[in-house]
Amino acid sequence: MAAQNTLSENGAKRGKAVLAPVTARGEATRRRILDAAEAVFGEQGYYEASVSEITRRAGVAQGTFYLYFPGKRDIFVELVEDLGKRLRVATSMAIAGATDRLEIERLGYEAFFHFVAAHRRVYSIVQEAERVAPEAAQSYYHHIADGYQRGLEQAMRDGSINILDAEATAYALMGIAHFAALRWLIWPQHESESPEIPSIPPQIFASIMEFIAHGFNPLSSTDHA
Amino acid sequence: MAAQNTLSENGAKRGKAVLAPVTARGEATRRRILDAAEAVFGEQGYYEASVSEITRRAGVAQGTFYLYFPGKRDIFVELVEDLGKRLRVATSMAIAGATDRLEIERLGYEAFFHFVAAHRRVYSIVQEAERVAPEAAQSYYHHIADGYQRGLEQAMRDGSINILDAEATAYALMGIAHFAALRWLIWPQHESESPEIPSIPPQIFASIMEFIAHGFNPLSSTDHA
Repeated sequence: MAAQNTLSENGAKRGKAVLAPVTARGEATRRRILDAAEAVFGEQGYYEASVSEITRRAGVAQGTFYLYFPGKRDIFVELVEDLGKRLRVATSMAIAGATDRLEIERLGYEAFFHFVAAHRRVYSIVQEAERVAPEAAQSYYHHIADGYQRGLEQAMRDGSINILDAEATAYALMGIAHFAALRWLIWPQHESESPEIPSIPPQIFASIMEFIAHGFNPLSSTDHA
Repeated sequence: MAAQNTLSENGAKRGKAVLAPVTARGEATRRRILDAAEAVFGEQGYYEASVSEITRRAGVAQGTFYLYFPGKRDIFVELVEDLGKRLRVATSMAIAGATDRLEIERLGYEAFFHFVAAHRRVYSIVQEAERVAPEAAQSYYHHIADGYQRGLEQAMRDGSINILDAEATAYALMGIAHFAALRWLIWPQHESESPEIPSIPPQIFASIMEFIAHGFNPLSSTDHA
């Protein structure tokens, strides 16, 4: 993504003139501030985090921060958008080329779990956004759901999966992934300060895939496995 | 639940002597403070909420509050526990007597959606707890998952549902319910100030049940519907 686009998009979205430099160096500074914000919001939460702590970590002056972002809430909202984009890119790359819908789920889930595990406390930023900036949280999920829905509709047209409401199925699949991530990736991190990246136990992952493939159906594992 | 038990439980859990009166009147005051806290945390969020606003709504003196709860975080944690208990009671009552596992899911989901819809902003308290009091949020979900898991294990032993990891299946089912609630009950509330209680559209509910019954399996709706 070109720096020019990013900055003009941001300005346009807020209806404010943001005076950030559109040079490569300006874009690097902007990225450094966003990365620092990700760390600070992730560790301290939105309410405890301060712009001065973000600028301290980014190694920039407070005045520089305000060239790029109008305030704390704005950078928080932008961070949620940024995380959503990075997650969508990671999953799109993971599923590229796959055609079997269950294989697409497997690859997409793997990429999602890897993203969550690798970003540690960052994932809680999106959850906190439900309170702090509900429109950003909803937009984060809507964007993910949109892509999901298109893929599912294609698979329904192909006859490769059961015909269901595509949006309901998209949210169901996002819910399964979210709660598996909470239970097996996020909560264990609270309990230990281990730097090791947690992962979903293989038998849990296999059960989730089998549930997506056949649900409760007791006949399916012998009939169609 | 007897007032005596509630109070001694609370005292024991925190390892603090809470000097709350164990009379019926004391219990009523305690309940009134909890209800006021539910409203204030639900509307303003944990960080914006204050003990003085809670006591103002409950119509009690600040000193009275501290007879029952050591502080803001303590009453927040207790509220999350209280919501979890009320939700578990509501779903247990809804599924009592049902034996078919899919019918149990349908009744449990209905009760859950009704609880979320009726409690409006309250549900966000549990989500906010992930940041404010992660141990309370995890305990809330662990308790729900425990009951779920026992029911699923029974159905697996009966042969009425596919044999999967019961905990993985419990979290998958909780995730589906959570995201359907977000999408069709919680988010529409943000968008409108309508006092009407939202509900899950019937075709969405039906699709979710079909997904739980058969997953993606394209043969199942003709084979085993």
